[in-house]
Amino acid sequence: MTTIADSLADTLARQIASGAYKAGDKLPSLRELAQLHGYAKNTVVAAFELLVSRGLVEPRRGSGYFVLAQATAPKPAEEDAGSLGRAMDIVWLMREQLKTQPDAVAVGDGFPPVEWLADVRLDKYHPKVVRTGLGALFRYGSRFGYAPLRDHLVRKLADFGIGAEPRQIVLTHGANEAMDIVIRYFVPPGGKVLVDDPGYYPLFGKLKLAGAQMLAVPRLADGPDLDVLEQLLIAERPRLFFTQSLAHNPTGSDISPAKAFRVLQLAQKYDLLIVENDPLADFKPTALPRLSALDQLERTIYIGSFSKSFSAALRVGFIACGADLASDLADLKALIHVSSSEYSERTVDVILSEGHYQRHLKRLQQRLGEATRDALKLFDVVDAEVFARSPQSLYIWAALPGVDDSLAFAKELLPRKIVMAPGRIFSVDSTQVSRWSRFNVGAMADPRFAKALRTALRRRAG
Amino acid sequence: MTTIADSLADTLARQIASGAYKAGDKLPSLRELAQLHGYAKNTVVAAFELLVSRGLVEPRRGSGYFVLAQATAPKPAEEDAGSLGRAMDIVWLMREQLKTQPDAVAVGDGFPPVEWLADVRLDKYHPKVVRTGLGALFRYGSRFGYAPLRDHLVRKLADFGIGAEPRQIVLTHGANEAMDIVIRYFVPPGGKVLVDDPGYYPLFGKLKLAGAQMLAVPRLADGPDLDVLEQLLIAERPRLFFTQSLAHNPTGSDISPAKAFRVLQLAQKYDLLIVENDPLADFKPTALPRLSALDQLERTIYIGSFSKSFSAALRVGFIACGADLASDLADLKALIHVSSSEYSERTVDVILSEGHYQRHLKRLQQRLGEATRDALKLFDVVDAEVFARSPQSLYIWAALPGVDDSLAFAKELLPRKIVMAPGRIFSVDSTQVSRWSRFNVGAMADPRFAKALRTALRRRAG
Repeated sequence: MTTIADSLADTLARQIASGAYKAGDKLPSLRELAQLHGYAKNTVVAAFELLVSRGLVEPRRGSGYFVLAQATAPKPAEEDAGSLGRAMDIVWLMREQLKTQPDAVAVGDGFPPVEWLADVRLDKYHPKVVRTGLGALFRYGSRFGYAPLRDHLVRKLADFGIGAEPRQIVLTHGANEAMDIVIRYFVPPGGKVLVDDPGYYPLFGKLKLAGAQMLAVPRLADGPDLDVLEQLLIAERPRLFFTQSLAHNPTGSDISPAKAFRVLQLAQKYDLLIVENDPLADFKPTALPRLSALDQLERTIYIGSFSKSFSAALRVGFIACGADLASDLADLKALIHVSSSEYSERTVDVILSEGHYQRHLKRLQQRLGEATRDALKLFDVVDAEVFARSPQSLYIWAALPGVDDSLAFAKELLPRKIVMAPGRIFSVDSTQVSRWSRFNVGAMADPRFAKALRTALRRRAG
Repeated sequence: MTTIADSLADTLARQIASGAYKAGDKLPSLRELAQLHGYAKNTVVAAFELLVSRGLVEPRRGSGYFVLAQATAPKPAEEDAGSLGRAMDIVWLMREQLKTQPDAVAVGDGFPPVEWLADVRLDKYHPKVVRTGLGALFRYGSRFGYAPLRDHLVRKLADFGIGAEPRQIVLTHGANEAMDIVIRYFVPPGGKVLVDDPGYYPLFGKLKLAGAQMLAVPRLADGPDLDVLEQLLIAERPRLFFTQSLAHNPTGSDISPAKAFRVLQLAQKYDLLIVENDPLADFKPTALPRLSALDQLERTIYIGSFSKSFSAALRVGFIACGADLASDLADLKALIHVSSSEYSERTVDVILSEGHYQRHLKRLQQRLGEATRDALKLFDVVDAEVFARSPQSLYIWAALPGVDDSLAFAKELLPRKIVMAPGRIFSVDSTQVSRWSRFNVGAMADPRFAKALRTALRRRAG
């Protein structure tokens, strides 16, 4: 038995060294490994203990074995080359987001902690995915995307109060591609587009790529600044407004019902189309007011995602809009890359259909609520200014006492392996100094963050 | 036992009716279904027999049970609305390609027959995919794409004689997205781009979308027309040339070594960058001359795909080029849609690593060789003019006797459910009448095609 355990431990160690399991990843459970390899559970336990003794993994009570930071191989040079010292521009931040720095606290991260998602067992559902039609797994998908998943989304949107037929829904390679397709359809070079400021910086990147002219609508704690919005509508006659009504990125704020109504009145008056990006919908109660729910996709285009609530690796997002526009966007998508991945779409469809998924969402919202409460408590203790206090918010937008330039502060914390998201990244004019930063409440739970924050603030105060 | 068989038959019948299995799809094998559901094999046999008696499937000797055409539900109206009668423009053809018309012979199809691919058992490999790192299945991938798959591609390119390091490889959402990213990086509105004529029409669509000006380089049976190429280089000074050296789409021709060398000489003389699209690489012997192999990615950008050799549903393609350019393209990709699907990339990596895959490719090439031989024989019998005679070619470019306008001929065959790909679709100037059509040798094996072709040609002759 020792020999088999040794060999299993060696296999797992190689997988860790090669980066297949990264620092903080949970190893498959005792039961899974036993089933997978056909070993006795005792053998697997012995292998785990060998890995612990080699300092590669650690047990966490009741939740399994996790890979330790020092176990993983150093990252290849290509990703590192001085990027920590580089200007914090959009591409830099996107690169940072895509890197896994084994031992850093990614408090500026845009993503929920992986352990919040890991109860959706992608592996468990695979046999069902295959049963939905093995032949279809080899071909391109339809231009709209996998029909049963679109049917499912019709029901999901109905829960949000948005009425849509399947032919109004186009599946995309994530919500980001959805935005890119809408931009390529509507925005000519030099075209004027309204955006939230602060707002979603990958959107700014896409608009810059399209040669668009961005018009900044200040984001207040209850939604867009209506005065500025109307002035810009009168003076510049823009056609499109990209906005996040709920769980706004980066401020974590939600639009008020009254403001949502006023925004739509302005849209009608000035013939404006609103693109409502809602990637964190699953983190919020369904009943909150969305522009698309009030307007029923007349002047609104709704963009949704599954990346934050169960897997970004599948890359499945969608657009819901008027039927004619949906058909045009589906054609445009086909022109760009033929089709989105039906393999991924079938996987999402199977997972959404399981009762387990509803329980997963409930647990996710609960965890988010707890993390938000703890994060707000910490900010109150250190006397930070908090922009908006939503009870469930992956992001908190806060200004720290004595910090006038959050970018300088972020650089100060980098050597302590705290990776922040300073406010100016989210600004249309990223040269402006900002007091604000975006904080990920999931990452804030790491005790190293509170410690580093207090130390840095104390040093500033003293 | 009858009750269980009934219920299994009902389940399968529902899946067929819902389109989960389409006409011509193979049902899972007796053994697979027995294992999946935990039934006795006798039960599964009884269920298959029930389905046969209901006219839903048919047994084919030694290869399993296949769904019959009349079994599948009519397609939803959204995809049908008069599209057969519509102008055969690019979007129309792309729509047609994405549709599965249950009982049509898709002789214009761009895809190999699904049964050529179905021995790559996507389901079988899933446990291995999961073992590569469950945690990573929830996050965005790296901006370059999954590192072990890029390592694998380094070895694959070495087989083609192309030397590349992992940092020179960017994974994309299929080869079509790869082209789109290259266009967005290099081509400003109004930018001049050389293309093969006839050529790959989804590329033309993307260039039109970018507002590019296409300069047509006639494709001869041994490669580009060098005189026209040089004239255009002198007169128009284009920066980029998109071309397919091998298994050219639509003509099925391969570039000669001498011509490949001359093209690269011209590229150097006139400071031209060549984008070599090679989606059918796996269908050909590795030793054939590629521009990228001669040039070693100095003035060449190589684009590859897995869509045609095992699954288009995964949407995994790649770009190989100089390291600095690769880094820029990876940034651009991240800006557009954050990352490609690491879930799909891990799946591809696992499948490529199996010895089974090499056997699959060998079988694929063998089947292709046989189908090509039969197709050429048929064309000789009906006295068609064949543009190029490669021993292994998914596409044959041919002109039929007495047919001056292949679009008119295609419309004639449509009521007989033969879907052709008439030549003018592949022309830069699609208003030009063409004698030529692209034929898929896999689809030509359907006896209904030979029959319909002979009937139509006889009627014309008579």
